[in-house]
Amino acid sequence: MSGAQLGDGTVAIAGIGATEFSKASGRSELALAVEASLAALADAGLSPDAVDGMATFTMETNPENALARALGIGELSFFSRVGFGGGGGCASVMHAAMAVATGVAETVLVYRAFNERSGRRFGQGPPPDKVAVTTENEYRSWVNPHGLLTPAQQTAMVAQRYLNRYGTDPEAFGRVSVLARKHAATNPHAWFYQRPITLADHQNSRWIAEPLRLLDCCQETDGGQALVVTSVERARDLQTEPAVIRAASQGIGPDQHTMVSYYRDDITHFPEVAGVARRLWAQSGLVPGSIDAAVLYDHFTPYVLTQLEDYGFCGAGEAGDFIAEGHLELTGRLPTNTHGGQLGEGYLHGMNGIAEGVRLVRGTSVNQPTGVEHVLVTAGAGVPTSGLVLGVDHERTN
Amino acid sequence: MSGAQLGDGTVAIAGIGATEFSKASGRSELALAVEASLAALADAGLSPDAVDGMATFTMETNPENALARALGIGELSFFSRVGFGGGGGCASVMHAAMAVATGVAETVLVYRAFNERSGRRFGQGPPPDKVAVTTENEYRSWVNPHGLLTPAQQTAMVAQRYLNRYGTDPEAFGRVSVLARKHAATNPHAWFYQRPITLADHQNSRWIAEPLRLLDCCQETDGGQALVVTSVERARDLQTEPAVIRAASQGIGPDQHTMVSYYRDDITHFPEVAGVARRLWAQSGLVPGSIDAAVLYDHFTPYVLTQLEDYGFCGAGEAGDFIAEGHLELTGRLPTNTHGGQLGEGYLHGMNGIAEGVRLVRGTSVNQPTGVEHVLVTAGAGVPTSGLVLGVDHERTN
Repeated sequence: MSGAQLGDGTVAIAGIGATEFSKASGRSELALAVEASLAALADAGLSPDAVDGMATFTMETNPENALARALGIGELSFFSRVGFGGGGGCASVMHAAMAVATGVAETVLVYRAFNERSGRRFGQGPPPDKVAVTTENEYRSWVNPHGLLTPAQQTAMVAQRYLNRYGTDPEAFGRVSVLARKHAATNPHAWFYQRPITLADHQNSRWIAEPLRLLDCCQETDGGQALVVTSVERARDLQTEPAVIRAASQGIGPDQHTMVSYYRDDITHFPEVAGVARRLWAQSGLVPGSIDAAVLYDHFTPYVLTQLEDYGFCGAGEAGDFIAEGHLELTGRLPTNTHGGQLGEGYLHGMNGIAEGVRLVRGTSVNQPTGVEHVLVTAGAGVPTSGLVLGVDHERTN
Repeated sequence: MSGAQLGDGTVAIAGIGATEFSKASGRSELALAVEASLAALADAGLSPDAVDGMATFTMETNPENALARALGIGELSFFSRVGFGGGGGCASVMHAAMAVATGVAETVLVYRAFNERSGRRFGQGPPPDKVAVTTENEYRSWVNPHGLLTPAQQTAMVAQRYLNRYGTDPEAFGRVSVLARKHAATNPHAWFYQRPITLADHQNSRWIAEPLRLLDCCQETDGGQALVVTSVERARDLQTEPAVIRAASQGIGPDQHTMVSYYRDDITHFPEVAGVARRLWAQSGLVPGSIDAAVLYDHFTPYVLTQLEDYGFCGAGEAGDFIAEGHLELTGRLPTNTHGGQLGEGYLHGMNGIAEGVRLVRGTSVNQPTGVEHVLVTAGAGVPTSGLVLGVDHERTN
């Protein structure tokens, strides 16, 4: 296999698989990872011994060698982790693609599995006595005394400033939530299947951290999601339609803190997100107008607004109107979070969103818009982040 | 820049830098990382704003964004972590090389900094009440009740089996230690500078976990080490001689546990090390006989013996004789751990050994053998591992 740059379209996602998304899986995180991995491999039509690489999150509790043993994989020649929680989903696919492009591995399993609801709930922040005194955690000393202990509290600062700066009505956040639940309502795999909400439901839901209400916050979920990354050449011989990786990028921006980049002149926009966007367009030769559908990381609704702006789908402060005009609907200009997002389907650190990106490219989403050729998938904003552009393989013949 | 495979010699280590190696640094792990990074960049003749990628260990406590802020780096487009402690040193360089080869980053800072002696001492194992009940830690439940709590205790099982299987005299372990201290004695940066030992000193040192004595165990060290990875093309314009990455590989082997792969038929050899070796030779087109000097990961002396065998420098059970015959001496067939190793210089999770590999290629080791063209550098054995072959750049003209 000859060498390749990312962005020349020689690497693809060839398989996707997940467990159910629940609030209490009733089994170990390793069992979830194994199930998701086997499902993704079965989707691609591969057996575990085809896997020679793995990529996942630093927060993942299933080490690569443990998962390899459990799956019966003999040998791995590549393994990689990405930090910063939900910022790492698309990055782990990027690392897998780099391994395939450089010949370091042929087939990389990307996985994430956790009992995030029945086990450790990230949404509650770490217990103070479990926090090591390291640079990783020193920021907590600056924000915790001000009551900013949880991700929701830390995000509330950004959300309030956004509303204030642009005079946006908080209903704009609500519309993101309503849309996610509308899409989840028709997705049998979504936790909120057949449970749509109204804007009034959102506005009546309880405060979590003003201006964030319960229905502005993604779920807490138990589950596992896996993806199989391999060369497009190889993927063409497999049983499913490959989702070609047209571009992949990571980003850390100037003066970036983790969730609390409050010292910037403008805390409502994220230069690391704009940086990822710039590189995705450069690698793929695409522009925001070329994107036919999007999976935008929705840990909290306000970040969907900031991402629409930072990825260039609309101008600063315009996202509220952009959403109100229906552009994120299935019939709109940018159908978004067609699976229900993390607000509606499940919170798998964005990995389930990448799987939805693959389905959109394959044309198999339960809420499939017409004419999808290029899909943008993003990772968590507010933290070091990443993004992907997935595309249709026009040269596949079988 | 055009795409590239690892092994085609287009990526190099262009700068190395470290703090002092001590038992009590007296400053934060972030300060150590910053100092080492600035030293590595100064060595290459680059300023921090040239850096657009970072690679490090999952165990590193200095997040990429914190180090970027501290160094004044504006933006990063690549960041990666490798798990399994000392198994990850060469792997982090491999990830950096992949990023450069695929155009994801131009200049990647690889770093590792810790107060491993004055802060958390890995050698003592984690306090039982700090161990989360996850797949990452479940193995402790199987080995801790048998008294195998620390890395030394876990390694003792392998060492005892090796001695028993091959009838090797434990003095073979001692010779590794004596050699490391001999090289450290002439290295002003080594903790054991001017403090050589004799074989009798080794044999008289106290048991840590039989058959391992105090002088079979690497040091516990405070310090930081950084490396700068960039394209050979770019490195040729910089101020120092590039160490070309001729090959880089990671490995997890069949039925591999972390430090305690006791269920294999043969616990004295490591298929993941042999797998890394096989891929290094395949990538570089070299064979063990092409290697002019080596930096073998010496967390515990017995692993130097097993690595000599698993990398193919001698046959199974022959390492004791191979060492006794003087082949690891500066005038020998395979001058090894010329900086003093982790037994003599300092324990920086093998990162200081990679820096020594660069010096050997440059011809600037304090214990420089003659005629060095290719250097093997390895990472921790007993855990998922990695390795590098560094080589001279024959085409550099300035």
